[in-house]
Amino acid sequence: MPGLDEIGEFGLIERIRARRRAADEDVVVGMGDDCAVLRRGSILEVLTTDCLVEGTHFQPGWLSMEDVGWKALAVNLSDVAAMGATPRHALVTLFIPGGIAAEDIDSLYDGVEACAAGAGVVVVGGDIVRIDGPFAVSITLSGTCERDEVVTRSGAREGDVIVVTGRLGEAALGMEYLESGRRPAGPAAERSAERFRRPVPRHEEARVIVRELQPTSMIDLSDGLASDLWHILDMSKAGASLNAEAVPVGEGVVDWFEGDRESALEFAVRGGEDYELLFTMSGRHGDALAGAAARTGLEMTAIGRITPREAGFVLAAAGAETRVGRGGFDHLKGLREHRKEV
Amino acid sequence: MPGLDEIGEFGLIERIRARRRAADEDVVVGMGDDCAVLRRGSILEVLTTDCLVEGTHFQPGWLSMEDVGWKALAVNLSDVAAMGATPRHALVTLFIPGGIAAEDIDSLYDGVEACAAGAGVVVVGGDIVRIDGPFAVSITLSGTCERDEVVTRSGAREGDVIVVTGRLGEAALGMEYLESGRRPAGPAAERSAERFRRPVPRHEEARVIVRELQPTSMIDLSDGLASDLWHILDMSKAGASLNAEAVPVGEGVVDWFEGDRESALEFAVRGGEDYELLFTMSGRHGDALAGAAARTGLEMTAIGRITPREAGFVLAAAGAETRVGRGGFDHLKGLREHRKEV
Repeated sequence: MPGLDEIGEFGLIERIRARRRAADEDVVVGMGDDCAVLRRGSILEVLTTDCLVEGTHFQPGWLSMEDVGWKALAVNLSDVAAMGATPRHALVTLFIPGGIAAEDIDSLYDGVEACAAGAGVVVVGGDIVRIDGPFAVSITLSGTCERDEVVTRSGAREGDVIVVTGRLGEAALGMEYLESGRRPAGPAAERSAERFRRPVPRHEEARVIVRELQPTSMIDLSDGLASDLWHILDMSKAGASLNAEAVPVGEGVVDWFEGDRESALEFAVRGGEDYELLFTMSGRHGDALAGAAARTGLEMTAIGRITPREAGFVLAAAGAETRVGRGGFDHLKGLREHRKEV
Repeated sequence: MPGLDEIGEFGLIERIRARRRAADEDVVVGMGDDCAVLRRGSILEVLTTDCLVEGTHFQPGWLSMEDVGWKALAVNLSDVAAMGATPRHALVTLFIPGGIAAEDIDSLYDGVEACAAGAGVVVVGGDIVRIDGPFAVSITLSGTCERDEVVTRSGAREGDVIVVTGRLGEAALGMEYLESGRRPAGPAAERSAERFRRPVPRHEEARVIVRELQPTSMIDLSDGLASDLWHILDMSKAGASLNAEAVPVGEGVVDWFEGDRESALEFAVRGGEDYELLFTMSGRHGDALAGAAARTGLEMTAIGRITPREAGFVLAAAGAETRVGRGGFDHLKGLREHRKEV
């Protein structure tokens, strides 16, 4: 039997998928996307769950209780955004070790509610349980959308343009600051620190993208572009060619690598927790990209094209092509091993 | 600030409820019932989440991985049953410490799937995360029902009959065997051990109850009758008078207390994890009770009446009345303290 460290999170998900029962007629999308998609009468519901565990996703002292509450909901909002759905209702489960005061829980809830208020989400239930271990928060979030609006990972077609929102690598850099205990001064570093602490999910921007750009596939960047694009390629049975020079790298990341663009790029495409959106769209809608970007105030950058499956995933730079393997941020391997990979 | 141990799980839920945002128009029932109830187009969805944590809900060696998987889904099925809904789709989150092999996860999933298959539930997603702490499973379960079928905790009216399914105290006794390391021989003890290990949720029986008995309120017995009936009374602003002699106590419990009926009764009404149903119904439907019991093969026992709020919650035995306080199984206090209470 292989050990869990060899299999990793994605290998384990594959094992579980292979063992699951057949879906019923109301399961539009089951395991393997950002959310499950379920038919509920005339509408579609998306359902997702994600958790934050101290010692796994963050170390003691890195985040305030309010940050933890905010982030635990934000990472779920990002998954609902990736389906093009409107976030609606949340269940919040708290795993509470000894030594946590009631006012800590209040602060955590303030963080959840601050994030929920911005997204129009209502917390409708949950669970509270003592744990003889680390503090953890697990949130389930539902969303709704019309039938023709849901966007999965499986619709990318050869020739589609690959687009990413925002700039990459900032959240991973924010974590790097915390791990190294070294953080430069200035607004770029400030912004990177904030991106790790309080990711801003792109659920409103996702609705604009769905309406104006008709994406053929979409995913949120939780594990890093290199890893997450693979999910779209695997589900869509496609390949990709990225233009290395076009990939938008966070300003702080370029600073951190003292202008070494190649190292900064590798860090940015491997770093996790950006919670930006990665989507594909027909080249026909290319002219609408600038308008959607302007309307949302969010950078949207065309970084490459979908290619045939057999072409694989390549990064093209200055005439040379590099093949990209399945890397990225695998939470099961833990923070330490992740940092080794970067 | 009060400590968490003083506040307890229910106190904490109250604090959180008091801080929550106003519900939106699609929230039919928010926090405070077995499930949230959400309007999804023409149907109602119920949504609930419950978890099992090693060291909190069970000790190492008490349950096989298959048992943990089964039970983690079963406790959620019980909550969906209590709303009168049909269970549909589940998300399964695993918190995995070091030292757990991939085949352990397979076994856990076999337990989830065995329970899911019996209930017509499909697992549509989840999360897998490493934890530097105890093994834990958190499941979110959805269900659906027609608008006129959902049953909450708040509809009990004065004069309604109080009914409980099955026999009480067996699961708590099964835990007592494990804690004391002492277990009598014989089928009654065997059954009690099994009830703790693999609770059988009453979701199919709940559908019969809804159709044939038109319950005014319903809850599943997770924390013990004494505690759970209080939830109905608080939400319905009602009181209750129970007939102590009518309360059905598990055979093994009576044996354990060597025929001391009073001690057995106290154990049974305070013991948690029965996952039977407690409901109220109009006396008009009283004649239908025997038929519903026969059709489901499940004992259904009328154990008392709903009274005015000011009458409180009393247990009547041999002419004398005992007032019942808010006791029962509070998971936040942990196993040890729970056992002190019993």
